[in-house]
Amino acid sequence: MKIGIVGLGLIGGSLALDLRPKGYRILGVSRKEETCRAALHRGIVDDASTNLSLLATADAIFICSPISLIVPIVKELIPHVSADTILTDVGSVKTPIVQEINEIWPNFVGGHPMAGTAESGLDAAISNLFAGRPYVLTPVETTPPEAVKTVEEIARSLGSQIYFCTPEDHDRAVAWISHLPVMVSAGLIASCIGETDGKVVKLAQNLASSGFKDTSRVGGGNPELGVMMARYNRGALLRSLQQYRRTLDKLIADIEREDWDSLEQQLKETQQARPDFLP
Amino acid sequence: MKIGIVGLGLIGGSLALDLRPKGYRILGVSRKEETCRAALHRGIVDDASTNLSLLATADAIFICSPISLIVPIVKELIPHVSADTILTDVGSVKTPIVQEINEIWPNFVGGHPMAGTAESGLDAAISNLFAGRPYVLTPVETTPPEAVKTVEEIARSLGSQIYFCTPEDHDRAVAWISHLPVMVSAGLIASCIGETDGKVVKLAQNLASSGFKDTSRVGGGNPELGVMMARYNRGALLRSLQQYRRTLDKLIADIEREDWDSLEQQLKETQQARPDFLP
Repeated sequence: MKIGIVGLGLIGGSLALDLRPKGYRILGVSRKEETCRAALHRGIVDDASTNLSLLATADAIFICSPISLIVPIVKELIPHVSADTILTDVGSVKTPIVQEINEIWPNFVGGHPMAGTAESGLDAAISNLFAGRPYVLTPVETTPPEAVKTVEEIARSLGSQIYFCTPEDHDRAVAWISHLPVMVSAGLIASCIGETDGKVVKLAQNLASSGFKDTSRVGGGNPELGVMMARYNRGALLRSLQQYRRTLDKLIADIEREDWDSLEQQLKETQQARPDFLP
Repeated sequence: MKIGIVGLGLIGGSLALDLRPKGYRILGVSRKEETCRAALHRGIVDDASTNLSLLATADAIFICSPISLIVPIVKELIPHVSADTILTDVGSVKTPIVQEINEIWPNFVGGHPMAGTAESGLDAAISNLFAGRPYVLTPVETTPPEAVKTVEEIARSLGSQIYFCTPEDHDRAVAWISHLPVMVSAGLIASCIGETDGKVVKLAQNLASSGFKDTSRVGGGNPELGVMMARYNRGALLRSLQQYRRTLDKLIADIEREDWDSLEQQLKETQQARPDFLP
């Protein structure tokens, strides 16, 4: 079986690294000549090119580009491939992508392998990145069962845990556990630097330790990524943010009213609930 | 020099462990007979008792109890000690404690060693807990300079980094970097479990990974501690929470208006600001 990979970065490169030793023939496409050469040199792919026509004979193609390029790449790819070619993507938001691609290529299975590192690019690609990690597939009513089966088998061969759901449920779930935390955490940093007393800010900086470090981590990450999340998952993220604001208002109200029993009750519930969200 | 320690838990026990080998004579007081025996048996203290009268001859006494017991313990202690005895505490909030104790014992230096582990109790006590960590001292105008000097020297001998500030500035700073993160983080967990679609909650639980884990950590901690912070640092925490709410509203407004430039600008500022808060 021939697998095409468009985008040889952390995700695309790591997919290639895991799949090629399993007997799949891997064809890689990158916009950069240099990346193609590196992928060939490191034996990550069987063949590589900057031209999508390389993928004419691929059975399944993984689009591993930034979210904003997924649909444009599919449109560019279509003239080169036959109707039975299965397309799938690795984007972290599913609804808008699945909707747009379904209209132009029914043989498409939305996917989201939930793995990564702080690095990016082909140099960051590693083996076993997806092992033990969730891999979400979001087929819709019109998705051919054979296409789903093929992508599922490839994903399973990575050692991932497969979850099936609708694109909408996926986007709501990741809004809660991935996109909301970014905004909550960014808000923490932004409000601290909004303190107008310079000596208090300085002192806060000196005294901050692991609690602040952990809570602020995802809010201090890549701004472009944060904007992408908000842009492509706007509806679900706003819904989560509004629920978050109501929850925050309840905490503030308890502290204002000095209702310590109610505050303790809320904190007991969060303490109890957190382990259900840990792997 | 004789140092008294009231409360032989994680902080009191760790103080004793570090100070005794430096030649200080350590007198420990615990409410529990069993803890006194264990502290003596492990050689953590020179003498131990459940009775505060043990500290009659101490030169400086560290009150290492939960915040709510600091003032009551000082009141109980006063009849047993002479006027030149220096008292200090390790409470994580300073304004209300310093105010109350100053009225009854001027020879008092408010302190806050910012160290800890997830554990508690004498069994959790370890050496070098305070080395390289901040130790805040909050003397006021009426505090005798000799008392400040003595407590500073002891704190320095632990290898801590000493910071001097007013009790009010301390409380504002810890509201930002310690107490606000707890509420922000607790709000995240509480809002996720407020999602009404059970299958989305289940999916979110399955997909949550390190981003959610880190952002939710301090919000899933000890509820009693969270209430204590809010109760004793209510003014500064509310001020931080209100600023946080305004910041959050700005993020939400940008996403509602699809003002991606403004959102990116905000996220760039948080990315840039975060390193200043890391040790």
